[in-house]
Parts: sequence; structure tokens; C-alpha cells
Amino acid sequence: MSKQPHGNAAIRGTALIGEADVTTSETFRAVDAATGAALDPAFASAGAGEVEAACALAEAAFPSFSETDPGTRADFLEAAAAAIADLGPALIERAMAETGLPQARLEGERGRTIGQLRLFANLVRSGEWVQATIDPAQHKRQPLPRPDLRRRHVALGPVAVFGASNFPLAFSVAGGDTASALAAGCPVVVKGHPAHPGTGELVARAVRSAVAASGLHAGVFSYLPGPSNALGTALVADPRIKAVGFTGSRGGGLALMRVAAARPEPIPVYAEMSAVNPVLLLPAALRARGAALATGFVQSLTMGAGQFCTNPGLLIGIAGPELDAFAEAAGAAIRESAPHTMLTADIRARFESAVAAMAERPGVTVAARGAKAGPGGAPAALLRTEARHLLADPSLTEEMFGPAGILVATTDAAEITRVIASLGGQLTATLHLDPEDEPLAAALVPLLARKAGRVLANGWPTGVEVCHAMVHGGPFPATSDGRTTSVGTLAIERFLRPVCYQDLPEALLPQPLRSDNPWHLARRIDGVLEPQPGR
Amino acid sequence: MSKQPHGNAAIRGTALIGEADVTTSETFRAVDAATGAALDPAFASAGAGEVEAACALAEAAFPSFSETDPGTRADFLEAAAAAIADLGPALIERAMAETGLPQARLEGERGRTIGQLRLFANLVRSGEWVQATIDPAQHKRQPLPRPDLRRRHVALGPVAVFGASNFPLAFSVAGGDTASALAAGCPVVVKGHPAHPGTGELVARAVRSAVAASGLHAGVFSYLPGPSNALGTALVADPRIKAVGFTGSRGGGLALMRVAAARPEPIPVYAEMSAVNPVLLLPAALRARGAALATGFVQSLTMGAGQFCTNPGLLIGIAGPELDAFAEAAGAAIRESAPHTMLTADIRARFESAVAAMAERPGVTVAARGAKAGPGGAPAALLRTEARHLLADPSLTEEMFGPAGILVATTDAAEITRVIASLGGQLTATLHLDPEDEPLAAALVPLLARKAGRVLANGWPTGVEVCHAMVHGGPFPATSDGRTTSVGTLAIERFLRPVCYQDLPEALLPQPLRSDNPWHLARRIDGVLEPQPGR
Repeated sequence: MSKQPHGNAAIRGTALIGEADVTTSETFRAVDAATGAALDPAFASAGAGEVEAACALAEAAFPSFSETDPGTRADFLEAAAAAIADLGPALIERAMAETGLPQARLEGERGRTIGQLRLFANLVRSGEWVQATIDPAQHKRQPLPRPDLRRRHVALGPVAVFGASNFPLAFSVAGGDTASALAAGCPVVVKGHPAHPGTGELVARAVRSAVAASGLHAGVFSYLPGPSNALGTALVADPRIKAVGFTGSRGGGLALMRVAAARPEPIPVYAEMSAVNPVLLLPAALRARGAALATGFVQSLTMGAGQFCTNPGLLIGIAGPELDAFAEAAGAAIRESAPHTMLTADIRARFESAVAAMAERPGVTVAARGAKAGPGGAPAALLRTEARHLLADPSLTEEMFGPAGILVATTDAAEITRVIASLGGQLTATLHLDPEDEPLAAALVPLLARKAGRVLANGWPTGVEVCHAMVHGGPFPATSDGRTTSVGTLAIERFLRPVCYQDLPEALLPQPLRSDNPWHLARRIDGVLEPQPGR
Repeated sequence: MSKQPHGNAAIRGTALIGEADVTTSETFRAVDAATGAALDPAFASAGAGEVEAACALAEAAFPSFSETDPGTRADFLEAAAAAIADLGPALIERAMAETGLPQARLEGERGRTIGQLRLFANLVRSGEWVQATIDPAQHKRQPLPRPDLRRRHVALGPVAVFGASNFPLAFSVAGGDTASALAAGCPVVVKGHPAHPGTGELVARAVRSAVAASGLHAGVFSYLPGPSNALGTALVADPRIKAVGFTGSRGGGLALMRVAAARPEPIPVYAEMSAVNPVLLLPAALRARGAALATGFVQSLTMGAGQFCTNPGLLIGIAGPELDAFAEAAGAAIRESAPHTMLTADIRARFESAVAAMAERPGVTVAARGAKAGPGGAPAALLRTEARHLLADPSLTEEMFGPAGILVATTDAAEITRVIASLGGQLTATLHLDPEDEPLAAALVPLLARKAGRVLANGWPTGVEVCHAMVHGGPFPATSDGRTTSVGTLAIERFLRPVCYQDLPEALLPQPLRSDNPWHLARRIDGVLEPQPGR
């Protein structure tokens, strides 16, 4: 690798290792999603040497960055948000070319990315993530005195982040994983997704400029583009990395989980992998508004070419004329749906073969397909089967990443329950119900809550609000770790660990636990939460 | 297996699967720790059939138990505490025979076990573990309305608990893992430790009586005694088990981690495994009070035959006359120390071979040994080496489970830092310092906090307070998961997961998220924590 002086405006095709722009002998190109044409410039293809350099810097940055006071760290997150906003139309244009996603969607995603950084800035300022807890000494307690015990949550260490292709901004270089890891005080090394390296580099330069402007150690953030699996493996295997955030395919997530578990020191992997997001069409709702449900379903299924983790890929209803009418209406909408460009030729090819393979399985029929389109476009698909086939063949519940879903006809409510029980973990589960359906729904909600991180009524699962109550997670295999979320303020907890200090002299205590409370934190004293003092 | 009517008073030698006392064709015996004599009665040796029955019951109990209101669940934990207290001297007598631990220690441990259940009862009543969070709908928000989003934490599912031999009450059948899992709303299946099956059964009967008295589903608690690894493997592999709590050897913990990771659905294992708990003797402290430190050290090292996870097994100081004087004084105290009976003949044999193997390593000398004793007794040991040997051979930092420690002489403060950097994760790290040592200590505390779950000053790590601020955990390999603690109220979080409910009709919402707040919880509304309303 060779280093050059850096700049923050243009796409140069380098890795960003701390302050340095780094080129490599091997390079790769981005591809225009709609045309398949190679885009300029050539990008550095980072490897083991760049991983070593970035991780060494991240480790060097950890002691100071992990102890930054809430104001400094929050200001940095806001500076990163502002720097991304300052990239202006150049970012959107590049992202449109690299991903095939439309302008409005990418502008919305940029807003979400910036808003997410600001939300974490506010969270950091609140100091609640410290969970400062003090159990004062009881010198006269019998039979033994109690020592002075003080606990805080502190950053785990440097974190590796793997961006997703389907959200080139909100789940990529400065997406939810990066924002929550930085908020926790963890330096971040991003493995850039090779499907949007220009978009990634622009965002990386923005984050880096915020690191510099905030006077932080340059190792707080590095960006390693590259198409090879070896790059990701080397990053997760590096002993200085203490946790991994990943959004992508199940195969990719499982591979990183294996690398992390095989390390001399295993580390947590937060992989958000895949789901079919079951949607239950309960009888009264189907009877009352089957046609509207069909329209809403196809809109949710085909939005963004169906390339959402929360895409509604599995519909479940009770067989009968109402379900047939729903299928008819949904099929008509599918046939009329405009084909969208998919993110990459590879994703489109995998989508086509997934649909074709599903259509070949016993008991599965193709109810409708959308119109064919140009090289990047993918026609939507609605397949249909009966629950007995799904119960006999769990592969019918596998994700077809893209605008395709399967409608499952059950014989009765009991069979709905059996289908739910047969499912693996999901990101979401949705009920469409009318008041008459409530008794059945009341029995189903607890079953769905065991299977999914989010349970919805009378809506569609696409659209993940960034807020306090959100859970974008769910039991395996939807994610590697159903105890967490990758969206919303709770995501910060993934990158923290508790440490207890016993009988330390004041001068040796970390700031948030000192008796004079210099960070003005709400703290739990002897079990009672004391509110945040005035500043 | 065959089932009999049950009772709660005497030791019958059965497994307890829900309400049933279950015998098996294979049996095993407890052994008197001091004499090696077999004790009556014979105990059921549970296997795959008993695992299946207990897990089926635990799964059946989950829906109702996980939704018990805080008062009901807290009352149950208090009933379990009372039932354990009601076992009276019979419990202590049996535990003394099975473990060789003295009466006062076991009575203290019983108090701690009961107090721990009561602490979790109070925690459950507070409802804080629910983390109820509501982001109300914003129907008029532009460009898109915000749905109503409500999040709570809910029990993971049935939990397998593996008790430790060294704390037959506080880290066993109704110890911290069981108490925190039950507090979270998880049914528990305990794999009883074969070194104290009578003690375990008495406690299990007490917990079961509390389940019945509280009107809970009988599957909330089962107890499977048995000496085989196959029993533990079958339990962790059972698809209904959703998390594992374990305290014991590193080999045992790693084996369970492998079983859990290889399941079709991997699950978290919270294994608290081993540590040498480094103690740093800083220069001014050593100069001012070396003799007192030596006495304190040997007391902590030999207490309970050194069979504590937090035993101070690695002392570090700067070479010189003060360190020699410390070694001299500690050696004298070691030679005078009374040998204690160890928990099992196997543990004693492993202790002796660990000490012998350590003494054979290059650069290691035996500074002192305690007097020999009867068949169960283990003589304490103090070994000595120089830091350069330890840095060359990491096996010098391996735990010798029992009353043995190694004193490491460093050349200077820089070498202390290198020794700390070379260590794996620890449960605790201790500094002995005088005011003059503070500049050095200030540089060391952050390094120690990255290595250990608890950092102490001027004390000894044995003695783990059960409270809010405690962290009994630490980075791998001290535990399998450095993001948690197995002691203190924070331990409940290991057995919870977040679930978000979007736009659910009131009647379908779980109790803690309903708008009328029937559980009277403190809840976070739109990001602001609203205090607990009056009841």
C-alpha cells in the first residue's frame, strides 16, 4: 500500500486509514446498476496490510475516544451528520448510479442517516448509556462491611462494521452500526461494500473530516473498500477488533459468526441477516378489505425492488373465496407493477434463480409475475402454496431477496398456529385484523412475539422508524443475536460492557463515577435512580 | 424413568421434573469430601429422557410464566427464599458433608442465596427490567406519519442452569443464574452438580414447593441430577432451551459454548469460567505495609481452600528488597496456613498436578508450601517467577484452582504494563497503592478495566457483593461473554430480549405497554423517562 495526502471532496478510490489516503496494487471498479457499465475511478482493494494498519490505529485511538465526555462525543456525531449533509447532490448522484435506487428514496435515506447520527448524539449527551450506578460503602455493616462499589458501561473496543448493499447510506459506512458504535465510544473500521464504493468513500471522507474537526485521534474511523471475502475475514479475525456489526445475507453473516467464534478470543457478531416477515391475513379483515390489502401488499413487496430486510415475503390466510379474491387482486397488481433496477447483476441473478427454484418445489405455483425489463430490472413474483406443503418442506420459508412473496393457504386457525411454530426467527411479523378477529389475534400475538423482534397490526413491515421503541432484530436466523436491535437508541448497548470499581480513591475513578458527578449524569445510588442534576 | 408421588422434606435421590419425582435405572452417589466415603441415598442419573420431559414442561410453562405480573413473580421468588430458609440445619449439614466447607461459610452462603432471591424479587417488583418504552404515533408527521411503537423486554425462553461445585448454594440450584432467569420470567431446568446432589435436591424441593404454593405452572422449575457430560450436552442442545447459565471450569464452559454454537439455532451461553485475578503491589504500598499485605494476601488465597473464582492467583510487584520481604512474609504465612478440605478428590488431584506442573516450568520456583493434611486437605502454595518468564510463556498465567498463587517480579513499571497487556480476560484486577503510587495507578486503571469486570483498590478480590453496582464477569476467557455479569441485579438482562409492537389495538398489547399502565411502570415516553405512577 502507498499513502498520499488526503482530501475530503472528491472520490479518489483510496482506502482511508486514519488521516491517510491509501492506494493498493490491486483495484476494483464500481458498476452502474442500470447499465452494467464500469464506473470511474478504480478503487483500492484493501487487504491484510490495510486491516493491520487500520486496527492498530483504532486500538491507539481507543483509550482517549472511549473516555471522551458526552458533549465532545455528541458534537463529533453531529459534525459527521453535517459533513454528510454537506456532500450535497454529488452523494445522491453517485449512489443512484451505483445502486439503481431512485433519487427520492436516496434523499430520504440520507435524511434518515443524518437523523440517526443526531439521535445518537442526543442519546450520548443524556449519558443514560453509562448506567452509572453507585452502591456506597457501609462501613459498619455486620457481619462484614460493604465496600464502595461503582459501575459504569464503557466501550467494548474497536468495532468492525460491514455495510449492506441495499441501504448504501443508512446501513452502510455511517449507518446505524457505525453511529451506535461511535456513540458507545468504540473506534470503527468499516469494510466498504463493493457495490457502492464511491458512495462509501464520500461518506467516509465526511466522517473523517468530522474526526479531524473534533480534534479526535485519527484512528477513531477508518474505511477499507474491497470486494474480497478475505478482507472481511482478516478484519473480524484481528485481535484488536472486539465486536462486529453486519447487515447482509445469511451466508455472509454465518461466515463472520464462524470467524468470530474461532478466534482465540471469541467476540460478538451482530449480524442482521434475512427474514421473510410473515403477514397474517385474518378472516374478517380479508373479508372486509381484501382488495385494499392486496394493493398495500404489492406496494410493500415491490418498493425498492423488494430489497428490504423487512420485505413481506410470506403471506398466510385461511383458504376460501376471500383468499382467492385477495390472490387475484394481488396477482393483478403484480402483473401491473413496474420492474425496478436491482442493486447488482449478481443480486438480480440470485433473485431470478430463487424464484425459479421456489416455483419448482412440490405444491408451489406461480400466481403472477411482473413484466420483464432491461438488464438491471427484476419482475415481481407472487407464488402460492398450501400450508401442508410448507409444513413438509421448510425451504418454502426461505427468503427470495427481491420483489417476490409466497401466499400460503391454511385450512384453519390451528394450521396458522402450526405454520407460525414452524418458522425460524424473523425481523417482523404482521397481523391484518378487524375487530372480529381480535380473539384469534390475541392467541397469535404471543406466538409471533417469540418469533420476531417487531409485531405489527394493520400495516406493512417495510419502513423501520429510527426511535427509542424500535426493535430491528429478532431471533436467529433473522439475526445472530435476538437480544439486540440494529436500529434505534437501544442499538448502543451492543457495544458496551459493564465495569465495576471497588474502593477506588476519587482521583482514580473514571469521570462518570466521581462523587462530584462532573458529567452531570442521572445515577442510581443504592438502587434509587437520582435524576440528572442541573448543569 | 419412573415417577413417584413427591415430597419436599427429605433427600430421596430423584430428579424433580415439574411436580414429579423421577427415578432412573442408573444411579450415582455423593461422596463425603473429608473422608471419601460414599453417602446415602443413591441419586437418579438423569439422561436424555429426563431432559426431554423437563424441557417439554418448561416450554409449556413459558407462555404463562413469562407474562406473570411483577407482584406474582416477586412473591414466588420470596417464597423460594423462605422455603430455602425453612430447610434449616439439615441443608447445612448435608452441604458440609458433601463439600467439606465449614458451617459458618455455608450459613453465610445460604444467607447470600436467600438475600439474592429477595433482591431479584425487589427488582422484579420495580418493573425496571421491562424497559417499557413508548413512541406515540405522529399521524401528521411529514413526509410520512409515524406509527405507534411500543417496546418491552421479555423473557428469552426456558433456561438451562449448571451449578458450580465451589458454591453449592449461591452459584448452584437456586443461585444467581437461577434467580435472575426466574426473575426475567424464564422457566429453569437445572443440571445438578454431582458433587453435592443431596444439597441440590433439598434446594430444588424448596424451589418446587414455592412454584406450587404460588400457583405457577409446574414446568417453571425442574432439577436433573447426574454425573455425565452427556446430560449437560443434551440439555444445551434441546431446541426449547434458549440460554445457558454456567459456573465452572474453562473446559466445561468451552464445551457448552461449542454445543450451543453448533445448534441449528445458536443460543447464548453465560459461562463464568476461570481467572487468576491479578493483584498489583505498587512500590509505596509495598514499602509502607508489605507485611500486612502478605497476611491479607494469604488469608484471601487460602480462604475456602482457595476455591473461589476470584482467588488472587497472580501477584505482580517490582523486584527489590521490599518484594523479597513481602515474599518472605507471605511464605511464612503459607507455611503456617491450615490445610482445608477441598470440594472433591478430583479437584484436589487436579490442584496438586497444576501446582506441580507450574513448578516445573522454566523460571518458576516454589517459594513456600503449607503443611500436608488428610485425604481431602490441600496444602497452600506460593510460587515465584520473573516477568520475563511469564511474558515468554503464557501458561504461567493459567489458573491453579485452589490455594496457590504465583508472585511475579518485574523490572519496572513498564514491565508491569507489558504483563497486564499479556493477560487474558479476568474477573477482577486489584491495585494495592499508597497516595504516592497514584500517578502509576492512574495509568494502570484503564488497562486493568479493559481486562477485568471489576477493578479494586486496597482490598482483596474474594468476596463478591450482591448489589446493583456489582460486575462478576469480564472479558473472555474469564467468562464467555464480557458484556454481562452473573452476580447483581444487572444479571437479569442476560435472559431478556426486546420486542417492539407497532400499531397494536389496546386489547392486543401486553400488559406493561397498555396505555392505562396496569403494572404502574416507569416508562420512557417519546424519549423521556416518566416516573412510576402511584399504585
